Amino acid sequence: MNDRAAQPLSGEPAARVLVAGASGFTGALAAAIVWRHPRLELVAATSRGDAGKRLDALYPRYRVPIELTELDLGNLDGVDAAIVAYPHGAAAPTVAAMRVQNLLVVDLSADFRLRDMDTYERWYGPHGAPALFGEGVYGLTEMHREELRGAKLVATPGCYPTASVLGLAPLAEKGLLSEVFVAAMQGTSGYGRSSDDSVHFSAMTENAFPYKTEGHRHRPEIEQELAALGSPAPVTFVPHLLPLDQGELATCFAQLTEPTSVEAVRALYNERYEDEPFVHVLPGPPNLRALRDTNQCHVYATVTDTGRVMAFSAIDNLWKGASSQGVQNLNLMLGLDETAGLV
Amino acid sequence: MNDRAAQPLSGEPAARVLVAGASGFTGALAAAIVWRHPRLELVAATSRGDAGKRLDALYPRYRVPIELTELDLGNLDGVDAAIVAYPHGAAAPTVAAMRVQNLLVVDLSADFRLRDMDTYERWYGPHGAPALFGEGVYGLTEMHREELRGAKLVATPGCYPTASVLGLAPLAEKGLLSEVFVAAMQGTSGYGRSSDDSVHFSAMTENAFPYKTEGHRHRPEIEQELAALGSPAPVTFVPHLLPLDQGELATCFAQLTEPTSVEAVRALYNERYEDEPFVHVLPGPPNLRALRDTNQCHVYATVTDTGRVMAFSAIDNLWKGASSQGVQNLNLMLGLDETAGLV
Amino acid sequence: MNDRAAQPLSGEPAARVLVAGASGFTGALAAAIVWRHPRLELVAATSRGDAGKRLDALYPRYRVPIELTELDLGNLDGVDAAIVAYPHGAAAPTVAAMRVQNLLVVDLSADFRLRDMDTYERWYGPHGAPALFGEGVYGLTEMHREELRGAKLVATPGCYPTASVLGLAPLAEKGLLSEVFVAAMQGTSGYGRSSDDSVHFSAMTENAFPYKTEGHRHRPEIEQELAALGSPAPVTFVPHLLPLDQGELATCFAQLTEPTSVEAVRALYNERYEDEPFVHVLPGPPNLRALRDTNQCHVYATVTDTGRVMAFSAIDNLWKGASSQGVQNLNLMLGLDETAGLV
Amino acid sequence: MNDRAAQPLSGEPAARVLVAGASGFTGALAAAIVWRHPRLELVAATSRGDAGKRLDALYPRYRVPIELTELDLGNLDGVDAAIVAYPHGAAAPTVAAMRVQNLLVVDLSADFRLRDMDTYERWYGPHGAPALFGEGVYGLTEMHREELRGAKLVATPGCYPTASVLGLAPLAEKGLLSEVFVAAMQGTSGYGRSSDDSVHFSAMTENAFPYKTEGHRHRPEIEQELAALGSPAPVTFVPHLLPLDQGELATCFAQLTEPTSVEAVRALYNERYEDEPFVHVLPGPPNLRALRDTNQCHVYATVTDTGRVMAFSAIDNLWKGASSQGVQNLNLMLGLDETAGLV
Repeated sequence: MNDRAAQPLSGEPAARVLVAGASGFTGALAAAIVWRHPRLELVAATSRGDAGKRLDALYPRYRVPIELTELDLGNLDGVDAAIVAYPHGAAAPTVAAMRVQNLLVVDLSADFRLRDMDTYERWYGPHGAPALFGEGVYGLTEMHREELRGAKLVATPGCYPTASVLGLAPLAEKGLLSEVFVAAMQGTSGYGRSSDDSVHFSAMTENAFPYKTEGHRHRPEIEQELAALGSPAPVTFVPHLLPLDQGELATCFAQLTEPTSVEAVRALYNERYEDEPFVHVLPGPPNLRALRDTNQCHVYATVTDTGRVMAFSAIDNLWKGASSQGVQNLNLMLGLDETAGLV
Repeated sequence: MNDRAAQPLSGEPAARVLVAGASGFTGALAAAIVWRHPRLELVAATSRGDAGKRLDALYPRYRVPIELTELDLGNLDGVDAAIVAYPHGAAAPTVAAMRVQNLLVVDLSADFRLRDMDTYERWYGPHGAPALFGEGVYGLTEMHREELRGAKLVATPGCYPTASVLGLAPLAEKGLLSEVFVAAMQGTSGYGRSSDDSVHFSAMTENAFPYKTEGHRHRPEIEQELAALGSPAPVTFVPHLLPLDQGELATCFAQLTEPTSVEAVRALYNERYEDEPFVHVLPGPPNLRALRDTNQCHVYATVTDTGRVMAFSAIDNLWKGASSQGVQNLNLMLGLDETAGLV
Repeated sequence: MNDRAAQPLSGEPAARVLVAGASGFTGALAAAIVWRHPRLELVAATSRGDAGKRLDALYPRYRVPIELTELDLGNLDGVDAAIVAYPHGAAAPTVAAMRVQNLLVVDLSADFRLRDMDTYERWYGPHGAPALFGEGVYGLTEMHREELRGAKLVATPGCYPTASVLGLAPLAEKGLLSEVFVAAMQGTSGYGRSSDDSVHFSAMTENAFPYKTEGHRHRPEIEQELAALGSPAPVTFVPHLLPLDQGELATCFAQLTEPTSVEAVRALYNERYEDEPFVHVLPGPPNLRALRDTNQCHVYATVTDTGRVMAFSAIDNLWKGASSQGVQNLNLMLGLDETAGLV
Repeated sequence: MNDRAAQPLSGEPAARVLVAGASGFTGALAAAIVWRHPRLELVAATSRGDAGKRLDALYPRYRVPIELTELDLGNLDGVDAAIVAYPHGAAAPTVAAMRVQNLLVVDLSADFRLRDMDTYERWYGPHGAPALFGEGVYGLTEMHREELRGAKLVATPGCYPTASVLGLAPLAEKGLLSEVFVAAMQGTSGYGRSSDDSVHFSAMTENAFPYKTEGHRHRPEIEQELAALGSPAPVTFVPHLLPLDQGELATCFAQLTEPTSVEAVRALYNERYEDEPFVHVLPGPPNLRALRDTNQCHVYATVTDTGRVMAFSAIDNLWKGASSQGVQNLNLMLGLDETAGLV
């Protein structure tokens, strides 16, 4: 495969970027987005298990013609920024080592998303860099844009919080949410590359099911962010796995603190998102294909014939739910146009 | 295709059955179940548009080697019972004509499910046989078994009410439900055979979406039945279309009238369903593949780490959600073993 | 899951059957078919890795409510017959130990299919029971029916040879084949339960590809059988993996030893298969859904507008391509109706 | 949807382009590629049935925020070039009217692909512009690059000929082909947007089948082009429909005029394609996901352990098989970089 012999940069790069964990689904996509970014230079894509393999052999569709290498934390000269796509728990020590060397870090794990250590430890176990805990800016871009400009460490949110919070934010910001029920659905790429029986094609085709029904670790993250926006409402959250690859939908039932008409609800959504480059308020329910392979979020809010409020929010879990939102944040950290390199 | 030259009856049939509307998804399946039923004789399978074609040419998988005919309501001699798989609105006059001739009728449409004519007319338009309205026994078998024995006209419920009510009935019967939110999901067979752009394979693969977000006609049917069971609770219901053929899941968030422990919730479900031949309370969340091509309903109820009650209910929308539940009801109407001919 | 508390036998069983390797795809299905067979009793389903688990927990769709156990070759009292679903190479010693104890054995592996030891060793490595090599009757039922009656050891053919040979047999038996090219296609269940990256749902959805392009071990098996039927023709064979679960299609291009009209070709197929209970000659090309979950083979042969002969043959790879053909053979070995317990 | 308020042109466009038939699968994609092309301006996208609708409402994924209009052949001022995505037969008169007005035309139909009128009429019926028949340059870019530079009318080949001829050209050009058998496979987007029962999701999921088994109109087109390259070999061609959206694979069995080693075969392929920007010779068999949504063709040729030659060729049927190859040709017609606007 020789279609892209060199990275398509326009002029001097704004930053030389390393992607750590580039053999997993989100790391590989982050490397691909950086590779095609007009202002970022991809200087390395690292992997523990797949070092020595070419990234375009593992992920031909991304067409990134470079070889994966081992991460050497002792040799980061010439690296300005890193996107870390490690499992929860494993990310923190690596992030800390990078921050000590003054790299800008976009972390895609949960290690710096939460604000309460007890909550973190309950869901993820001991933290690998407690001194940095709470230091990351929460990277739901549309909600923390000003803090993200110039941030040094950004914790990109999970895919479920991204979809859920974007779906509910216009109500949350007005303090309108009193209780929320979210049925979220996601394709198998959200399960990660490490396969087991449950994501064998023969197990998933013609199938769908809820999981983590007793409680999911993204629930406290959603509650934390809705509270920060103005609505400290209890959230009941249950995810489902669907027989598709990329895509995520959050179907949210919202009980409000006061009766609100459908016109008022829609006005809130339209006003909140009218200037957002990636969040689009649709005139009807979203679907997953429409935004596959993009950084977009499609939102629709309505009030049923019986007066109940529902909000639907759709993203590509690998893109806006992880890798492209990471780059969106990196753009802000570097003072670039927020939309650079993204669709 | 000559594998089944004759219908595999054991002895004298208990009834000679006609299936009307046998070229649609649910009618064809009803004909197939009757064809293999040990006590029913399939005397005719009718179709307006496909008369003259063989059923096993249209639906080879069902292997019913008979020719579709036109329904002749003036010539029903030798027919004891009918399963009517017509669209809503079109069913009523045909059902009425059959009842006049004293046929037992299992109707798969909505025409005799509702108890309130205003509600019917709002969602379905003028009724085609108002004199019979309200005369049908509601055919959610597990909830109306005694009325079904010996009934003459049975209105088999829609797939969404079947899944939702079976998922909530143990709570409803104790008067515990105060409000319910249901996110339901279904495969494309629920959309019917008449195809349009939205169920083209190229449109559905790698896709999923909510629909009828402002209100779905199955909502009042669910409320009617939960109220009849003991919980007149408001229901918010939104369906989703998934990229699979057969299968339906109702994910139900239930607010209760009083705090109830997970042990108590589970005890209610286990007790309610322990003797049911087709409803199984699982030890964890259900999945759709496990019950494809069966009359089963798989239910799981839990209480989250934050004390919210969720119930999950899975069925095959074509089977328990329509055709096989119709036969389950017909078995009772005829005094047969309820499970005859069913898996 | 308590729907089938007891096995649905009618009267005294004709044989008490053990299924070895029942946690894999084909072994689990074999156990399910035996479980519902009217004349066979399933006395044990064994597994090395999953002993102690219930079969209906691993494969809920098959609804076999029994616990998997460890195979104990020293304690086979009360077992009359075994279906062995072990990997190639591992099967032979177990089969040999069972034969010593006089069990009837249906082997689903390749260990007793080939007639030439060099060929076996080239493709599968050292044989685990050379004394028995060549002793198995080749279990392509329709081609070896008489030998199968009363046989003690049957080597059920691979799914690709089953589809290919049934698709070409009417020509082969007349000595008409001079060269054959087969493009075969199969769903992911043919890949087996042990998952790796390549059958992750995210890797297979919206994908398809050829594999084993330099040579597949089923090629010599196909050539052996076509030669035995009367046509020692070279076969070029290439398999493809498709994004579906169950189903296999062999598209065969046949060069003939003499020009043959389409009428003559079709007459050969119709005559050859007219009395076969499971092989159906269709009036047009087959499709995979029509025979999913059955023991059927659908065949269509034609001559193109340019005079080339093509034959298409479709089966369910897990059923006729493995487990149900195994039971078809066991029926003959036991002197039962060949179709007992099968659809 | 307001993400792309204006077309992303860099400087003065090289041509103002109209896409006719932009509501079908290939026309819509052609419009999307032109919309994002750095040197082409999309001045209109027309549709008979969907005029007045927005293209991004019909095809949200393509994000082309313009309204479809009716084609007015009397008002083509300001249009330099057209891509015509009409059905076979309907294209010719429109193409003729455009050519009279001196537009450059890229036709995606079959109307100008064939060189023999009898063959055209046999497969497609009467031709709509016989005076222009044979005037189109055959737009398999890699085989006709020099003629395409400065051409006025280009007949972009069908998807099956594109895949098959690119897969066999290195052998054909050396006169090596004596007979060819092609089993081709394609996703449902190749079936077109007009849906019928056979591409209902419920009909295609878990299915696959051959079609046009008695002869396909792409066969003479493949033979014409292989002959033009140097090998007037008979071709047997059979297509299959697979349960996926975009993607096409041609599995080709080639009988050669003289024995050729695998090294020699591979050398032919590597030499022929080493400088091609879009055709890549892989070190192993191709898969469809790797090139989805690209103009690439992935080719692999091998010789089996029994000395038979196979060539595999994969494309995205909507891209290289239609729309993006059309733009590749338009680039050449306009003297632009052949790869402009393409991946």
